[in-house]
Amino acid sequence: MTRTVLESKSKTIAIGFDEPFCVIGERINPTGRKKLAAELEAGDFSTVEKDALEQVACGAMVLDVNAGVVYNSNPNPNETEPPLMRKMIELVQGLVDVPLCIDSSVPGALEAGLEVAEGRPMVNSVTGEEERLERVLPLIKKYNVPVVAISNDDTGISEDPDVRFAVAKKIVERAADFGIPAHDIVVDPLVMPIGAMATAGQQVFALVRRLRNELGVNTTCGASNVSFGLPHRHGINAAFLPMAITAGMTSAIMNPTRPVEMEAIRAANLLMNHDPNGTAWIAFSRVLDAVAEGTPFPEASKAAQAAGAGRGGRRRRRSA
Amino acid sequence: MTRTVLESKSKTIAIGFDEPFCVIGERINPTGRKKLAAELEAGDFSTVEKDALEQVACGAMVLDVNAGVVYNSNPNPNETEPPLMRKMIELVQGLVDVPLCIDSSVPGALEAGLEVAEGRPMVNSVTGEEERLERVLPLIKKYNVPVVAISNDDTGISEDPDVRFAVAKKIVERAADFGIPAHDIVVDPLVMPIGAMATAGQQVFALVRRLRNELGVNTTCGASNVSFGLPHRHGINAAFLPMAITAGMTSAIMNPTRPVEMEAIRAANLLMNHDPNGTAWIAFSRVLDAVAEGTPFPEASKAAQAAGAGRGGRRRRRSA
Repeated sequence: MTRTVLESKSKTIAIGFDEPFCVIGERINPTGRKKLAAELEAGDFSTVEKDALEQVACGAMVLDVNAGVVYNSNPNPNETEPPLMRKMIELVQGLVDVPLCIDSSVPGALEAGLEVAEGRPMVNSVTGEEERLERVLPLIKKYNVPVVAISNDDTGISEDPDVRFAVAKKIVERAADFGIPAHDIVVDPLVMPIGAMATAGQQVFALVRRLRNELGVNTTCGASNVSFGLPHRHGINAAFLPMAITAGMTSAIMNPTRPVEMEAIRAANLLMNHDPNGTAWIAFSRVLDAVAEGTPFPEASKAAQAAGAGRGGRRRRRSA
Repeated sequence: MTRTVLESKSKTIAIGFDEPFCVIGERINPTGRKKLAAELEAGDFSTVEKDALEQVACGAMVLDVNAGVVYNSNPNPNETEPPLMRKMIELVQGLVDVPLCIDSSVPGALEAGLEVAEGRPMVNSVTGEEERLERVLPLIKKYNVPVVAISNDDTGISEDPDVRFAVAKKIVERAADFGIPAHDIVVDPLVMPIGAMATAGQQVFALVRRLRNELGVNTTCGASNVSFGLPHRHGINAAFLPMAITAGMTSAIMNPTRPVEMEAIRAANLLMNHDPNGTAWIAFSRVLDAVAEGTPFPEASKAAQAAGAGRGGRRRRRSA
């Protein structure tokens, strides 16, 4: 069975067909967060610290770290991103003991992150674009780490799922040329907004099945994209995630501080027989009780984590 | 594509692979409802009336009608159930214009219901038990109606999904001997509680895929059974339904007055491309808005139904 192994300083997480769904926290990312971008340029990391602690408390098993801020004082990300990535990685891994996902479109920032990250981080991402393949795959090989492969190429994002499958296959084959095994490639088949493309859900479910059965790879996605532009997005996301899990999706890059989506994932883990004795569900149900009584989800999660620290530790080790 | 066609006096509903998920309202059933049982024996049908109207307002597309009350004054259901079933069917179809599902373990009650039901009702149920096959299949043939087939037989309910598949296959074959086509058999693969059997979810998903691919039949289930005995049952049910739909399940016998489960089903319809232009989701989101403001779900649903009567009518005709 395919297992993609990630490590922090002392913890191991496997993304895999027989593992609980891997929640990769997306919050540490200044893209579209003007306040965070301004803070980072000013050297203020308080939001990064809060986001790291809160996401892990809420159940993130991996944290994505993106340093993609364009400084007003220097508009060249090739100069500004690498040192910022280094600093953010060091800060986050000093606060929380979960594997990291080094997220950048700037290869220099990926390498800066790889130099300082403890354990075995994941890189986010390579695409099927020639230049990107040639820049990123050698880094993946050099540092022996897994990578997220996004199924678009030099022609853009195809609306044809067969083309997106072919791009993923090409990336897996090119990676093999570098000696990178398929189990270290986590394919993002690209989730389109269902409001813009009515077949978006069925496309993803079919693609995930093919990626799993034909290429034997793990999969991930930016889950919330599916509900873009529609009302009651959390309800759509909370149905999409269990559906994608049933089709074979093994991880998502998402906001773990949203209780509706996290409830759906924990219920899906239980229903997929990835929660022995329902231990995680029963613990989570106490968090839901506290939320129902008015406690904010991150606070209720932190309290439950503090109360059940021993059990939490065992759960994480089990999936190692 | 397999389509199981049900009719009321003037409306047609198809259960099918390319149709919105068919919600069969389970509430009109005195089993485990002592107050309703006592009312029925006393000739008081007010709860039946309320349940009929409320379930249809909340989105039930078919109503199950079960007259399985054991009278204190006469403990023989073969005498009491047939006239009660007749009376309940007449009452319900006078109130709401949706197809009915005649639900009884007493063959005389099934026939009494079939005699008075308008349109093309469904019968619930036949099993793989020899006596039941011999009593129920001739009725199905005589009235040319679809039937729910529960995959247990004279040996009971097997924990082995291969055995449950074999029982379903036997029922489909026996039905064929009577001239009943597979598209008029809706198989209930039997959902076990996940708290008692950790593989219950995966079993159902695998069984539904096989029933669909190998026998070409529609499927149904008592969805809430999966969460029996566990805390926050609605959260488990709300993940289970989209997962079962992804596996190919086409209907469920369930409580449509629970907003969490209905939200999950409507989101799954959208994601399966069974909700053109998201029309149903957007209308439902207004009901959720009203619920968030404190209006009870049945009331909010009734108000939305009244406001959008024209659109509701078009939606129903579309699936005919």
